[in-house]
Amino acid sequence: MDWFNYRDGQLFCEDVNVDELAAEFGTPLYVYSRKTLEHHYDELTKAFAELDPMVCYSIKSCGNVHIVKLLAERGSGMDVVSGGELYRAIKANANPAKVVYAGVGKTDDEIKFALQRGIGYFNIESEAEFENIAHIANKMQMTANAALRINPDVDPKTHAKTTTGKKESKFGVDIERAKRFFERYGRDKFIRLNALHLHIGSPVYSAEPYVNAITKALGLIDELRAMGFEITALDIGGGYGANYVHEQTPPYAEYAERIVPLLKPFVDGGGRVIIEPGRTIACNAGVLLSRVQYIKVGGQKKFVILDTGMHHLVRPAMYESFHFIWPTNVAPAHEPAQRLETMPNEGLDPADVVGPICETGDCFAKDRPLPPVARGDLMAIFAAGAYGMVMASNYNAMPRPAEVLVSGKGYELIRRRETYDDLVAAEMELDLMPI
Amino acid sequence: MDWFNYRDGQLFCEDVNVDELAAEFGTPLYVYSRKTLEHHYDELTKAFAELDPMVCYSIKSCGNVHIVKLLAERGSGMDVVSGGELYRAIKANANPAKVVYAGVGKTDDEIKFALQRGIGYFNIESEAEFENIAHIANKMQMTANAALRINPDVDPKTHAKTTTGKKESKFGVDIERAKRFFERYGRDKFIRLNALHLHIGSPVYSAEPYVNAITKALGLIDELRAMGFEITALDIGGGYGANYVHEQTPPYAEYAERIVPLLKPFVDGGGRVIIEPGRTIACNAGVLLSRVQYIKVGGQKKFVILDTGMHHLVRPAMYESFHFIWPTNVAPAHEPAQRLETMPNEGLDPADVVGPICETGDCFAKDRPLPPVARGDLMAIFAAGAYGMVMASNYNAMPRPAEVLVSGKGYELIRRRETYDDLVAAEMELDLMPI
Repeated sequence: MDWFNYRDGQLFCEDVNVDELAAEFGTPLYVYSRKTLEHHYDELTKAFAELDPMVCYSIKSCGNVHIVKLLAERGSGMDVVSGGELYRAIKANANPAKVVYAGVGKTDDEIKFALQRGIGYFNIESEAEFENIAHIANKMQMTANAALRINPDVDPKTHAKTTTGKKESKFGVDIERAKRFFERYGRDKFIRLNALHLHIGSPVYSAEPYVNAITKALGLIDELRAMGFEITALDIGGGYGANYVHEQTPPYAEYAERIVPLLKPFVDGGGRVIIEPGRTIACNAGVLLSRVQYIKVGGQKKFVILDTGMHHLVRPAMYESFHFIWPTNVAPAHEPAQRLETMPNEGLDPADVVGPICETGDCFAKDRPLPPVARGDLMAIFAAGAYGMVMASNYNAMPRPAEVLVSGKGYELIRRRETYDDLVAAEMELDLMPI
Repeated sequence: MDWFNYRDGQLFCEDVNVDELAAEFGTPLYVYSRKTLEHHYDELTKAFAELDPMVCYSIKSCGNVHIVKLLAERGSGMDVVSGGELYRAIKANANPAKVVYAGVGKTDDEIKFALQRGIGYFNIESEAEFENIAHIANKMQMTANAALRINPDVDPKTHAKTTTGKKESKFGVDIERAKRFFERYGRDKFIRLNALHLHIGSPVYSAEPYVNAITKALGLIDELRAMGFEITALDIGGGYGANYVHEQTPPYAEYAERIVPLLKPFVDGGGRVIIEPGRTIACNAGVLLSRVQYIKVGGQKKFVILDTGMHHLVRPAMYESFHFIWPTNVAPAHEPAQRLETMPNEGLDPADVVGPICETGDCFAKDRPLPPVARGDLMAIFAAGAYGMVMASNYNAMPRPAEVLVSGKGYELIRRRETYDDLVAAEMELDLMPI
């Protein structure tokens, strides 16, 4: 569900004509719908309400401070994976006690920063990491909670690069090892190891892998409790899919229907459930708008060349991901009733949709059937809210896009476009001496 | 050939111990050797001296202003693919007349900027682009030279994502179409279409594909001249390989031996040759230094977790590229005599070398045999000078590394490390109103 809809052939974000945004702020431009963000957060919270979970938004999916802020104001906790993301959470006035901090490579400086800010949970990925955090906490005489990340060895059937919960992974420890982990570290005075964390990968399009993983985690909790350890929280992770194509992902309620009954006894017994919904909140809440620079026709191929590419949205080049792409202004017959990989409309013409980067891999879509498109037309790349701007680079010395947040009839620039000066600032401000 | 060598088990860049650089500037850190950059530029120029070519350094491979500057001072022209790269060239005091500007998506603003600065050549990728540039030049009453990029339909036998000279590509036009192109546009008053441009992909590890492509281009030049068109320059592109492993790439002289005799008649007849050496100049002139954060051992796997990853050097995650990785301080028996995919040293132990990003794809090497490595050790990722820093992102809200240039015993910070404040500056400086 999102609020990007065509009215009389024109794409609107909520009640704003996106062509007007492009005219005002230029392209490429990330446009987010506040209502969509909030709707996803609310629907998720509602679906799992019986568990009264702590929902932690994944800053890594879409980290703009103003988006983080509106979710924090709605009550969301935050899932961070670096000191930089914790910094973003703080700038957004998020409650540090509702921050969970994951990631396999936490540095000493990042750990100190997190301890000072009093975050909710460190998600622990390895023995070496636990020892380091405990050592730093000891030196600082500070305490914190920690969740051990376990690999339930469940195959989420997603892309190999984003599968994270299998046995041979850099993340977490397997279940047998978890018991030894608790025996060794479960009574540390400074880092209270009193929770488990699961994350099986993303995107996951069915409840089944979660059910398998949570069942294994609950079994482990029973064993750990029998061994005398207090387990107060279970972070069931995230990875819920998003709708890159129409209704590809089941509603939250469908996941919840399977997951809630499983976890209800744990919650009734005083346990806390943490959910990290991940891309599902932001993904369909954002589109990337781009202006067609050139149409190149020749041989058997047509190329639609955009002013954005793999430097601004790397998912197609990196993961061969599908994004629905459509002109923002079309004849009524070409209004997309649904966003699908193969569209049923008549009169479409296949083209490669490519970016300006000097690489053949800078391609959003190959032989994609599209309505008529001309130089100067505005195109929308849908479901670009998650893992879009956060992965953008300045490759080919291209400034990164601006970001705009729409709410009803209103909108606001939430990140200004980069300039050429921004690109070289960290180089030019140095007072260089000849060497 | 590069100046990264071990002395008594310690890695030096020229005469500087890299551990001292890491201590002074922190990690992750890109370290470049000036002597290596200059050596590559000089060797290439020497190899092709008989052609007196205009050598254009590819800013897209490694764009730091201070590196661009030292090459410009040595006489190098510049190969740019965007207004941002032209801006970098200008900041580096490069001669605009020696700038060639390629890229399939040149925007109006970029074209105006390039016309105003009086660049050497626009490399033209399509009919629509030519018409647009000519239209803008006409409006501005400015003139410029242009080279038509042709696809010689030669397979460079490299990675599919970086193959650019085959027939079905977003780049250039095929040879038959080139003639029609000249007939249509070859007498434009504002944009003088008087050159051809070739680029077959990268990296290319033998002279053969160049010979084939240049032969086709020379044939086309003959035909175009017979049709009455003046062809004053041939840009033979770049894509020469680099040594990701020991002496993987033939010396420039070996390419030149085949290419120079082919082009000598063209030059003797007054034609100008342009060479865009690409990655070969910077690649082996840079390493990425990273501190080992954690060693994670478990099951059948060992993971060496670094403080850098796919956000700072995306090539392994994006193109499955091999980078030689080695501790900067090793026992004498573990000094790498050569950098190879399989090292002959005794006592190595396989490990996955991974980054801190929350993706399984954030992996530099799988089951890579390494000397003993411990938490806190410094590792060097070699041949990271090209397509390293230029492709870096702030994914997971990680600041980008600093860059240091070494020259003999001296060194200098040429880009300062980003801060958390840098990450949010374009968001926080906005005076936001509630919407």
